[in-house]
Parts: sequence; C-alpha cells; structure tokens
Amino acid sequence: MSLGVIFLSETVGTAMLILLGCGVVANTALAKTKGNGTGFLFVNWGWGLAVFAGVLVSYKSGGHLNPAVTLGIASSGAKEFVGGIAVGFASIAVYILAQMLGAIIGATLCWLAYKDHFDQEPDAATKLGVFSTAPAIRSYAWNLVTEIIATFVLVFVVLAAGHWGDKTVGTPAGLGWLGALGVALLIVGIGASLGGPTGYAINPARDLGPRIAHFILPIKGKGGSDWGYSWVPVVGPILGGVIAGLLSGVLLPA
Amino acid sequence: MSLGVIFLSETVGTAMLILLGCGVVANTALAKTKGNGTGFLFVNWGWGLAVFAGVLVSYKSGGHLNPAVTLGIASSGAKEFVGGIAVGFASIAVYILAQMLGAIIGATLCWLAYKDHFDQEPDAATKLGVFSTAPAIRSYAWNLVTEIIATFVLVFVVLAAGHWGDKTVGTPAGLGWLGALGVALLIVGIGASLGGPTGYAINPARDLGPRIAHFILPIKGKGGSDWGYSWVPVVGPILGGVIAGLLSGVLLPA
Amino acid sequence: MSLGVIFLSETVGTAMLILLGCGVVANTALAKTKGNGTGFLFVNWGWGLAVFAGVLVSYKSGGHLNPAVTLGIASSGAKEFVGGIAVGFASIAVYILAQMLGAIIGATLCWLAYKDHFDQEPDAATKLGVFSTAPAIRSYAWNLVTEIIATFVLVFVVLAAGHWGDKTVGTPAGLGWLGALGVALLIVGIGASLGGPTGYAINPARDLGPRIAHFILPIKGKGGSDWGYSWVPVVGPILGGVIAGLLSGVLLPA
Amino acid sequence: MSLGVIFLSETVGTAMLILLGCGVVANTALAKTKGNGTGFLFVNWGWGLAVFAGVLVSYKSGGHLNPAVTLGIASSGAKEFVGGIAVGFASIAVYILAQMLGAIIGATLCWLAYKDHFDQEPDAATKLGVFSTAPAIRSYAWNLVTEIIATFVLVFVVLAAGHWGDKTVGTPAGLGWLGALGVALLIVGIGASLGGPTGYAINPARDLGPRIAHFILPIKGKGGSDWGYSWVPVVGPILGGVIAGLLSGVLLPA
Repeated sequence: MSLGVIFLSETVGTAMLILLGCGVVANTALAKTKGNGTGFLFVNWGWGLAVFAGVLVSYKSGGHLNPAVTLGIASSGAKEFVGGIAVGFASIAVYILAQMLGAIIGATLCWLAYKDHFDQEPDAATKLGVFSTAPAIRSYAWNLVTEIIATFVLVFVVLAAGHWGDKTVGTPAGLGWLGALGVALLIVGIGASLGGPTGYAINPARDLGPRIAHFILPIKGKGGSDWGYSWVPVVGPILGGVIAGLLSGVLLPA
Repeated sequence: MSLGVIFLSETVGTAMLILLGCGVVANTALAKTKGNGTGFLFVNWGWGLAVFAGVLVSYKSGGHLNPAVTLGIASSGAKEFVGGIAVGFASIAVYILAQMLGAIIGATLCWLAYKDHFDQEPDAATKLGVFSTAPAIRSYAWNLVTEIIATFVLVFVVLAAGHWGDKTVGTPAGLGWLGALGVALLIVGIGASLGGPTGYAINPARDLGPRIAHFILPIKGKGGSDWGYSWVPVVGPILGGVIAGLLSGVLLPA
Repeated sequence: MSLGVIFLSETVGTAMLILLGCGVVANTALAKTKGNGTGFLFVNWGWGLAVFAGVLVSYKSGGHLNPAVTLGIASSGAKEFVGGIAVGFASIAVYILAQMLGAIIGATLCWLAYKDHFDQEPDAATKLGVFSTAPAIRSYAWNLVTEIIATFVLVFVVLAAGHWGDKTVGTPAGLGWLGALGVALLIVGIGASLGGPTGYAINPARDLGPRIAHFILPIKGKGGSDWGYSWVPVVGPILGGVIAGLLSGVLLPA
Repeated sequence: MSLGVIFLSETVGTAMLILLGCGVVANTALAKTKGNGTGFLFVNWGWGLAVFAGVLVSYKSGGHLNPAVTLGIASSGAKEFVGGIAVGFASIAVYILAQMLGAIIGATLCWLAYKDHFDQEPDAATKLGVFSTAPAIRSYAWNLVTEIIATFVLVFVVLAAGHWGDKTVGTPAGLGWLGALGVALLIVGIGASLGGPTGYAINPARDLGPRIAHFILPIKGKGGSDWGYSWVPVVGPILGGVIAGLLSGVLLPA
C-alpha cells in the first residue's frame, strides 16, 4: 500500500459521502424537490447511508472520510492506519488533504445534481444549508460543546468496534463490508440523538470542504458562506476525536 | 449455467422489483390507500426493499435487474457475469430482454394489486407516476445530469463492493444473501439523496418497462404515457452505468 | 425434535408476533397513545420487527408463524419442515393450531398492554382495526387478489432465500439469527408496497386469531367483529402461499 | 475478567446509551431543535441505535446496560454473566451500580449537549420528559402491566437469541458485534409496538438514573421530578425481566 492509494481512496470515499450527504439535505430543503419537507429522520438516514456508500468505495484506506477519525485513531496510540501505512505526519496529512479535496468534489457534484432546484430556491440561507451546517441557536461555546460530545461518540464507538474483532470473521471490526453498515447506523443514531443543536457536522472536512465549494461555485443568488461560524465544526470535531482517542486507552479495556 | 436460466432468473427478479417498487408509489400516491401521503422516506424504503426481494429471488443471475448494472459490469472489463456466462452481446441481450419483460410483468401485477385504487384515483398524472418517473422541474439536460450522477453512484458502489470479497465469507461481495441487504440500503440512500429532482429511475428497465405497461393496459381514465420524457431515464442511467464501469479501473484500486 | 416442541415453539413465536404487531397498530391508532398518528411506515417497521422477535423466539420450529408459510413449504415439495419433522397432515395441523393459539394469546396481551387506551378510544372500528385487517375499499374479489399477490411475494421470497444457503455460513438460508432480519425486512417491504388496499394480513392466523380474540374479550365499547370480511384474509393468504409453493419449482432454478 | 472491568464496561456502555437515548427525546421535544416534532418512529430509532452504540462500547461485560437484563439472566439459571464472572450477589450489585452511575453520567452529558435548548424550553414537563418517562394515561396498575409486558419481551427475546448460537459464527448469540444490531432492532420494535402507553422505560436504570440527574442538576426552570410515578418504571421492568428469566426454561426449549 502506498500513500498515493490512500489519497485516491479517501478522495473517492469522501466525495461519495458528501455527494449523498449534502444531497439528502438538498432533497428535503430546496424548492420543488420530490422530498421537500420530509424531515429530520430522513436526513439522518440519508447521511448514514452516505457514510455506508463512502466507506464501501474506500476499502483501501479504511474509509476514515473524516479528519476527526484520522486524528482520533492517531491519538489512540495506534501504530498503523492500514497495513503498511504507519501513523505519522505524512500519512495524517495525506488523509486530511484527500478528505478535503473529496468533500469539495462531492459538494460540487451535489450542486450539479440539484442545479435547477438551487436556481429556483429563493432563500440564500437554505442554499448554504445544503453545503454546511449552521446552529439552531447561535452560541459558539455551547455549539462547540455539542460538536465535541457528538464527535467523541463517533470516534469512541469506532475505536470500540475494533475490540469485537476476535469474535468475528476476518479483520478486526470484522465481517468485511458489514463494518460499513455498523458505521452507517452509528451516524443515523448520532444525528437523531445529538444533531438537534448544530446539525451534527462531526467532521471538519464535511463542513469546511462544502463551505469552500459554496464560496467558489457560481451558485445563483447565493449569500455569504458564514465564515464566522466555520471554525466551530472544525475545532469541535477535532477536539472530540482527539479526546476519544486519548480516553480510549482508559475507558476501553483490552 | 445456461442463458435460459439467466433469462428466467432476471425476469422473475425484475418482476418482483417492479411489483414492490411501483407498489410503494401506488400506496403513497393513489386515492384511498392506507399509506396515502406517507411521503418520500417511505418511498425510499419501499424501493430499497423491492431491490432486496428482487435480488433474493434472482440468485442464479446475480440479480442485476437493471440494464445499467449489466452494461456497467460489462464496461468495467469483467470477463464473466456469473460462473459460465461470459460477457458478450448474447448474454447482455438476454439480461436486458429479461429485465424489460420482468418490468412489464411486475407493473401489471402492481396494477392488479391496486385495481380499485387506480379506478377511484381521479388524476391521470398520478396514475402514470405509479408506473414511471417524471421530473420535478422539466429540464431535459439537467434531468439527464441527475440520472447520470445517481446511476453512476449505484453501479460504482456495486463494483466497489466486489473488492471487499477477500475480507468476507464465501463469494466476492460476500456473505451470501446479505449482499442483497447491502444493495437495498444503497438504493434507499440514493433515493433519499439524489431522488429529489427526477424520482431516481437509475434503471432503464424500471422506467421504460412500466411505461410500456401503462401504454398497453386498459387503465381506467389514464392519460398519455409522457413519451417525450421517456428517453431521459433510459439514456441517463445507461451513460451513468457505463461511465462507472469505465472509471472503476481508475478509481477503484485492486 | 417432537411435534410437542413444534407446538410450543410456534405458539410462543406467534404470540410474540401478534403482541408486537397488533401493538404498533394500537400505538398509532388508539386514543392518547404516545405514537398516535405516526403513520404507515411506522406500522410497517412495527410489523417487520414483530416478525423479527417472533422468529427469534421460535428457533426450534423454523419460525413459520403463519399457515400460509407452512402450507407454502408443504406445497413446494419439501420433505421436512425442520430436522425430524416430516411434512404431513399431522405436522401441518400442529403448526396451524399452534399459530392460531399463539395469535389469540398475543392479541390478548396486546389488549392488556393498551387497556386504558382501548377504554378511552371512542371509535369501535378503530378498536377492531388493532386486532384484524379491513380493506380500504371493500371489494371482496379485488381484496382477495391483493392478499394473494402479497402472500405470494412473502412465501416465494422465503423459499428463494433457501437457495442462498450454499454461499453462507451454517444452515440453508444461513447466517443463523440473521435470517430473522431478512424476513423482517421482507415484511416491512411487503407492507409498504402491497399493504395499501387491504392492510396486508398475508397470514390467516394473524387475522383470524385476533378477530376471535376481539369477539371473545370483554373490550369496552367494542362493535362487531366484521365476520363478513373475515374469509378474505384467510383464503387469500392460503391461496397465495400454495401458489408460491407450487410455482417455486418452476420459477426458482435449483 | 474482574468485577472492576465489569463496572467500567457497564458504566461506559450505559452512559453512552442514555446520552444518545435521552438525546433523541431532547431533539424531538425541546424548543428550537433541528429535529423538533419529528415524532415517535424517530424516537424509536434513536433509542434503538443508542442501545447499538452502548452495547458496542460495552463488549467486556456483555452489554446488559439494564438491571432487568442482569436480573433476567440471573433468574434464568445462568451460571456466568461472562467468562469468569459468576452470577451472584456481588456481580449483580456491580452490574446494577455501574448501570445507575452510567445513566446519571449519560443524562448529564445530554443536558450539556442540549444546554441552550433546555434554557429556552418554556415547559417544565417537557424538560423532565427528556430525562425520564411519564405515562400517557396515568393509571399506575395498568402502567405497571405495560412495563412488565414490554420488559418481558426484551429479556425473553435476548435469552432466546442465545439459542441461535450453534448456527452462527463465534460466541453464542453469535456473529460478534452484529448482536448489538439485533438488540438495537428489538428496541426499535418494542418501542414502536409497546411504547404507546408509558414511553417504554423497560429499564430501571434508564428511568431512575436520569430522574436523579434531573433532581440534582441546576436545570433552568425545571419543575418537580415526578417521584410519585418513579417506582413504576423500576418495579415493572424488574418484574418483567425476572418473569422472562423464570419462564425461559419452560418456554424456550433447549
């Protein structure tokens, strides 16, 4: 395995994740779509299955698709991300750069898939909401707390799943592609349970990548990209992921 | 394995797919049904589980049930569809003809299952909508883009799933019938995320077969079959599937 | 294995199925419940997971829980229901009697679990609707067609699932308790897609057992038990199951 | 395995369960959340996936997370909870104390994650409802019956799942972490089907732990903690679990 393959695998996987994830928001939020107004459980399933598809196509790199996962694994003391790829500055940088690039590509594809609906949507904030999260009640400190807790859950459970490996078939966290199903369901659950205050970014690339795409793309009638909030869904998930990694050695017995 | 078995298996599987898939639309859309107005997530689950049932009964042919899948596998450079069936003009034709026949049978069975509700539904467009897709905003070029992207996702993820085989039990894409679950969830996700603009045909047989059935069947108070749009959900999915097949060698490392 | 164990296993399993299945209808339909008005997808998941629980506790008898399944397996030409239990008049009678008894017990438990809500529900038809199905449009011939088609799908897919065995772990239809998940999802799908006209009895015991319970129990303010319709959800499912069994040899290649 | 590891594992698992479980109620119920008013099926999935995450992180202790499960296993005549941990007063006490502590921690984290929304929610009963259950119709005797029946279903199915072990891979109830999926789906089903009257505590720690947290925490504008009802979701689940354990030997053939 080379870092080039890691880069390709994470880019493709994150693009898939963001295309489908931003897509379900577009479907429930933009004007005249067939899924308009379907609601929050719909969005939860959409994002969960976006992770499912993203992990399935990212089999070479382990389907992180999220800098908080990459940094969480690194801070847990793991020696390798996948076979032959040692944890280190270079590999972490490759993972995160690929995730950012993939997120921008995925958001752009989502815009193309919903082009007519973006054009006919009158509200600029709704358009931005397809790309990036915004808090229900703007309160940076508490928004940060929510993102830290929700991302902690994601990374902590992913690290815990590795401990089931000895009871299953094949690799740790076992059962091959079914691991993608487990993560997908976890995302549905985190979204349903902890998505209420901030819309659960829980992934710096998921939020910042599409925000950059929103800033760059010639979207008809778009407003600002809300850079004032943009640091929360980056810093919160990083903190949550790293805390999960550090505590995993204490709270998850070998 | 013979091409006759392939034909039977794909016909039965696609009939099952379309009976259940068109059925869930009938349930949410037609007059006086028990599921009237349940909404888009309901339709996504209905189509996903229609694929689940269709693949389960189509175990001999690999459960393509979709010309875009068949053509996508072919253009990926695969040598065999299933054991003993080489990729070639004859086998592709058998798959596609069976899918079309199955789709017409399934749509007819759906009409019979909802006969009273078709008779009491006043709106002709709603009746056609049970059979075939229609765009939310009629714009052939962008509708085509949406169908290409959505079908690309379907075929690309299916081809990626084959790469998980070495980590699982049994055949590639492994774990036996659980593969049908994976595809079902993928359909739920694509529908939720990319179904907003066109209603996600993502399958030429799924759209054209029922449209032919609508044209032929003596449905009370039916209107036209909207042949003007009918090429979009045929051409778009074929392009999306073939592009996925061609790019799979580049984007999915061995 | 003895017929006594079969009887116990099917009674317990069907009681579990009907307690949870009628329960979800009570939750969405009866006055003042927390789930009041949640809708059709909710009911589909409730019945699907009722089957999941029912099959899990009915591991000894194979979890038929449904005379249409028992008769469908018998008419498919199978020699044994489970190890040591030959298909024959005695074993079929034991299965069906247990299913009927279990259904009556389950419906009674559901009434007790929702006792206050039955007492405070003003509408007699709603109360009966918790126990047994009623058609959306009363039309016995077409209602029968719908029940035949929907039950055909159930039994045909169950019989097809047995053909996946050689690709999986353990017994035919493989992977142990995960088979219960497969049937559960199938029930969700059939309900969503074909439940619109008649409320998908697709099981004579599911409909007739609770109807008998409704007739016997001292339910406050209950009306008639609608015996005029009661033959449809018995005859339709039996025909659908037997047709599926007979056609399985033709349509499901070995 | 030591009792200290059991204590840690159950504490962490139950905290995860309650954080996510109370979280989904907060999301649908509290003012201005993104999931406000999503409804009962949403809550069912949220609690089911809360159990999924809780069991995944509680791999060392078997993921009881519920005194009714612990007592149900004990009363079923089992000799060990997990390898090396004999059933007895000390181990039962460790399990239950850890579950209570974890529940209080989880409820506190949920309050922090939704801090702004608790502050802006005007209704005191809604705030309490995020922490603990309340009956739809207050009627202690029938509320108790409902909790007994619902918890019986939970523990009985869990005990039945152990009998599938011989058909699966690995440990009894088999397939490694997929067992967490099975329990999650069971919770979704019990909630949908039997949650209508009391909101399905089915777990003394799930109800009493958060109620204690509600009593202690400085929640803005909170009202009373409804101690009058608090015994029902403790006594009912304990009775239901013990009855399931005692009857498992009779109703679940070896």
